[in-house]
Amino acid sequence: MAKKNITFNDIAKYTNFSKTTISRYFNNPDSLTLENQQKIADALVALDYKENKVARILANGKTEFVGIIIPNLYLHYYSQMLNQLLSTYETYGYKFLVFVGNGKEETERQYIQELLAYKIEGMIILSHTISSKELAECNLPIVTIEREDKHTCSVNTDNYMGGVQATSLLYKNNCDILIHINADIAPDVPAYGRIQGFLDICQERNIAHELILKNLGNTYQETSRTIGQLLESIEKKYPNQKKGIFMSNDTHANILLNLIIRKYGTLPDSYRIIGFDDSPISRDAIIPTSTIGQQIEKIAGEAMELLVMQMNEQKKRKPSPLPAPIHKIITPVLVRRDTTE
Amino acid sequence: MAKKNITFNDIAKYTNFSKTTISRYFNNPDSLTLENQQKIADALVALDYKENKVARILANGKTEFVGIIIPNLYLHYYSQMLNQLLSTYETYGYKFLVFVGNGKEETERQYIQELLAYKIEGMIILSHTISSKELAECNLPIVTIEREDKHTCSVNTDNYMGGVQATSLLYKNNCDILIHINADIAPDVPAYGRIQGFLDICQERNIAHELILKNLGNTYQETSRTIGQLLESIEKKYPNQKKGIFMSNDTHANILLNLIIRKYGTLPDSYRIIGFDDSPISRDAIIPTSTIGQQIEKIAGEAMELLVMQMNEQKKRKPSPLPAPIHKIITPVLVRRDTTE
Repeated sequence: MAKKNITFNDIAKYTNFSKTTISRYFNNPDSLTLENQQKIADALVALDYKENKVARILANGKTEFVGIIIPNLYLHYYSQMLNQLLSTYETYGYKFLVFVGNGKEETERQYIQELLAYKIEGMIILSHTISSKELAECNLPIVTIEREDKHTCSVNTDNYMGGVQATSLLYKNNCDILIHINADIAPDVPAYGRIQGFLDICQERNIAHELILKNLGNTYQETSRTIGQLLESIEKKYPNQKKGIFMSNDTHANILLNLIIRKYGTLPDSYRIIGFDDSPISRDAIIPTSTIGQQIEKIAGEAMELLVMQMNEQKKRKPSPLPAPIHKIITPVLVRRDTTE
Repeated sequence: MAKKNITFNDIAKYTNFSKTTISRYFNNPDSLTLENQQKIADALVALDYKENKVARILANGKTEFVGIIIPNLYLHYYSQMLNQLLSTYETYGYKFLVFVGNGKEETERQYIQELLAYKIEGMIILSHTISSKELAECNLPIVTIEREDKHTCSVNTDNYMGGVQATSLLYKNNCDILIHINADIAPDVPAYGRIQGFLDICQERNIAHELILKNLGNTYQETSRTIGQLLESIEKKYPNQKKGIFMSNDTHANILLNLIIRKYGTLPDSYRIIGFDDSPISRDAIIPTSTIGQQIEKIAGEAMELLVMQMNEQKKRKPSPLPAPIHKIITPVLVRRDTTE
């Protein structure tokens, strides 16, 4: 099975050049005459030489590898983002070493050390476990997406604008009370903007509102039970009012929608619902659900562009460091479907 | 930003050993005395030497890289499989170069050539575009999953058993007519077993049945329209009969379920439905849907085991080729939910 690899020695013997000359052909071809370049090129064809990129990497330091660290692939948001990042291979030629953290901080740290030993050229980080300060200390071009990003370049959705869009739509639907259900996230995480957008619009326009910050659980059963309890208490608290509910993601919006439909057989006029992400579930739900869409293709494209810019700088003889991290913001898109008017 | 890398030259100068001795320390340490090993080890600490794995690869040929080629990450089946494959990093230490084909055969071929130039140790292929014959010609350890696998080692779900399980459950639900809707797939693709299992049970037990093989479309809108038309013709053809419908995947089962519920407000007793894959949508649907679950974690684990076995063989001085490709079959699991009795 193992076919013998052609070495510089073999090429040297075949052409009667020295090994040093062969090495120069690969690493500094301009130092040879055109005639000698041609002789070696012909020999490579005759010998069926397969380029050994590992050898080239050692010579010029360019691995064309980029590391990607993703928290998980269960959430559609992450798998779609990964799909778009990997698709940039056709544009830039970078190959991606992908790692899923699944919350294991120490394994993630060990993996990053391994990547550095392999001379990768840059990293794209979606995982939340390691602080941007620690990441920046890797001294490598890095772009983070939708996570704490004080010390790293980043691309994020304009979560604040998304919160404003969702809240404004529910308000225009003449709801009596607006409710936002989210996890109790830290203010330095980009997704916190959704909460701020909700609060600002409600306060600015003097709208009756309730903010429910609660961990909804890590399994479907748990989440479903918790949302069921929240629905019960909302029904008791606001019995004759039209309720506009802004859920923090489409999976949770779908669970709420199904609970209401199992109870009433339909979505009553007294409920308006909007989710976040534009995941397939928002479209495949029993009633197609309004949502705030993240422009995932655009976010992935901008992230790669920002990374390539930094990686190209590193290839210069005297790379100049960025004066400060660059943060790009991508606007979200309101998707109106049948759970709002 | 760029910190100077410590080279063998630097270590040689610091220790007063030759470069050859330093090289031997990394590639054949036993050829040095323990005392000299210790001197070099101390120098590495003093110089803050970071291992350059690229150099080690050149020395021993082991990159610890495995290539994965996936058709897309839109389908949950693929993103979940990728999650499980990547998670084996903790067990085996292999790093994964991941590529999504998105149906582009030529890009995929080019990518494989690149991977070979980087001296990857093996590949796991889920994409269908390149024949197993062509893949086998790469002369590299390969495992394919759920695709044509005549010339490659493979791990597949027992699709035939899945078809038998789904059909038997609908039969036990006292349906008058059993219907299987699937794409018109080739008999050498493992998923064809679902069709064969359906047909064999129906014929063996003399059950009235209809097999509908039809491309349901590539977009949600198209698929939804096509399934709507199929539902209409089924209703006309079998008006007073209890219909047991076996859909080829959970996404399609969910679309059918939603169409029926939008029409009747509930799932009438005259319909029983079962899907395939145990995707989240089968559980998140308005009526949790019965399905045939693939043991994705087990499939991924067996695939890596089969690949590592081949890769270890390649590291021997005289690797012996496999006499024939090994094919492993993983049994599926019947998941009973509320769309069957």
